[in-house]
Amino acid sequence: MQGIDHIGIAVKSIDEALPFYTNILQFKHVGTEIVESQKVKVAFINAINCKIELLEPTDEKSPIHKFLQKRGEGIHHIALTSKDIEGNITYLKEENIQLIDESPRKGAGGALVSFLHPKSCRGVLYELCQHKEDE
Amino acid sequence: MQGIDHIGIAVKSIDEALPFYTNILQFKHVGTEIVESQKVKVAFINAINCKIELLEPTDEKSPIHKFLQKRGEGIHHIALTSKDIEGNITYLKEENIQLIDESPRKGAGGALVSFLHPKSCRGVLYELCQHKEDE
Repeated sequence: MQGIDHIGIAVKSIDEALPFYTNILQFKHVGTEIVESQKVKVAFINAINCKIELLEPTDEKSPIHKFLQKRGEGIHHIALTSKDIEGNITYLKEENIQLIDESPRKGAGGALVSFLHPKSCRGVLYELCQHKEDE
Repeated sequence: MQGIDHIGIAVKSIDEALPFYTNILQFKHVGTEIVESQKVKVAFINAINCKIELLEPTDEKSPIHKFLQKRGEGIHHIALTSKDIEGNITYLKEENIQLIDESPRKGAGGALVSFLHPKSCRGVLYELCQHKEDE
């Protein structure tokens, strides 16, 4: 693993949350997109040495909707930068780490992603994230 | 704010949590210390582009003990790198951001720290963190 790619934060409304990041913390908002498979709208924020992703559910079936109902707004996951997600998944399975996605799937920004089960990571939801340019 | 200094993660036991970070993720453990004022033991992990701090309560009065009782193990806070914590605090007050620490206090690694109230930050506990070499 090559460091922290981004921190995912669940919010009810990106429009309402964004000014804290752009006006108060003065980080740059670099784009927003819908990830249809996860029923989520994602705003990408450049936090200088890593990124912040604000995650807003687009549907009640979204995992982010469930998270908000259970925990309220707050930090959802930590994404680790991977340069070889297939190799990392094979390695993690060998180390008996439980994976939510046993094969990489398309995430925000067209990256390949795979989530690790928090049970194997002391309560933290970790994601592996390999960007298109590293495929 | 100059980026993300570290991500704080609450754990019941640093000894039990550390192998996931050092053996599985292969990040380097760079030190452990007790922060008496917060009743917490802190393990510093170099996650390449930023740090991870594992936080274990040393006492039932520790805020981390309360967090673990309420939420279980998981992500506790995000620390933002500050080069001028006094100036940042003044600025945040002017912007009507509620602070838990209205004056900087000594945190882990001898850094000056100040926590922002999650109510002002959409449910996220943010910390400002200024390292000794930047004082």
